[in-house]
Amino acid sequence: MSDVIDRLHDTVRFRLSHPLVQLEASGRHLHLSRADADRLLGPGVSLTPVNDLSQPGQFTCAERIKVTGPKGEFPALVIIGPERRESQVELSATDALFLGVKPPLRLSGDLAGTPGVRLTGPAGSVDLDHGVIIAQRHIHMHPNYATRHGLRDRQVVSVRVWSQRGVTFNNVIVRLSPDFATYMHIDYDEANACGFRKGMLGSVIV
Amino acid sequence: MSDVIDRLHDTVRFRLSHPLVQLEASGRHLHLSRADADRLLGPGVSLTPVNDLSQPGQFTCAERIKVTGPKGEFPALVIIGPERRESQVELSATDALFLGVKPPLRLSGDLAGTPGVRLTGPAGSVDLDHGVIIAQRHIHMHPNYATRHGLRDRQVVSVRVWSQRGVTFNNVIVRLSPDFATYMHIDYDEANACGFRKGMLGSVIV
Repeated sequence: MSDVIDRLHDTVRFRLSHPLVQLEASGRHLHLSRADADRLLGPGVSLTPVNDLSQPGQFTCAERIKVTGPKGEFPALVIIGPERRESQVELSATDALFLGVKPPLRLSGDLAGTPGVRLTGPAGSVDLDHGVIIAQRHIHMHPNYATRHGLRDRQVVSVRVWSQRGVTFNNVIVRLSPDFATYMHIDYDEANACGFRKGMLGSVIV
Repeated sequence: MSDVIDRLHDTVRFRLSHPLVQLEASGRHLHLSRADADRLLGPGVSLTPVNDLSQPGQFTCAERIKVTGPKGEFPALVIIGPERRESQVELSATDALFLGVKPPLRLSGDLAGTPGVRLTGPAGSVDLDHGVIIAQRHIHMHPNYATRHGLRDRQVVSVRVWSQRGVTFNNVIVRLSPDFATYMHIDYDEANACGFRKGMLGSVIV
């Protein structure tokens, strides 16, 4: 019993003494370049926002895209808008195995040397020759949060979450921008592995 | 650069100063009671060993079982033999979502209050009223290893693995038996979340 109280005490002290960050689990999705949106959805067609996401200006779209790999397909993958410089497909390792592609672990936008996949929309198809990644776990961080806790852009930190499946995620990349709301993003494999629940907080360990 | 060397030094020191344990990823599978094997495969039918597993006496079987849940099915799930006291289906959270069942996180054999699922084999069907779990991460540990490193049965430890997706698994249960070979078992969600590769070693943290 005193063992349990000791452990509870340690846990509370740990959580009080480390910065907290809210976790979000990102399902598979894609971003489209303006040129690919033209080819897939029709020239000049606007993406239709459905839900605002936690990152300011980002939204899920009414339009869906079929994504086809060598071994499987997702018939209606979610698009996250607005358009980006390059099209990008973000999968979990489970999703990648299902499609039959072998994407590397990368931060968003770092697409050199990544595999491609076929995209199909109502207006046509695009064979991406690159753009598929497994998103490396990261924290979108507002500079105010970073200043308050002495953190910096591109810093590698760990984040501990408490649950029956408690995990400390190591190699978490801090990404700083005044356009960000402070959230840590993990994929569904990571969410399942740590007993993720909506609103879950993690402790940032430097 | 000196930052990199410092980190490398810390990592090497950490790995040298903690007991190592080899990880194995368990895919979805089931165990059958003798009575359920009779109903599914035919009275008195023996399970046919195909591959020996790392745990002494445990093997995958040539026979396969269809597992049906409210939302999906696995047409040919692997059986791990020999027979057990109770039938038990072990899924990842991803698998459970696919089947439409909500199993709790449990150690093997702890089946009270767990959901059931339909099993179908060449000789018939069985509606399990309980037996589906998500396996709680654990270390099968031989007593010699435990003695050498001062660990005990049911101890809760953490295990850190190094990879681009490095993770420290907390709440890992030590299970001691002279019948065990020393291996840590994780499921495929956890394997994907930590960048698992065959032969991967983890550092045991008390």
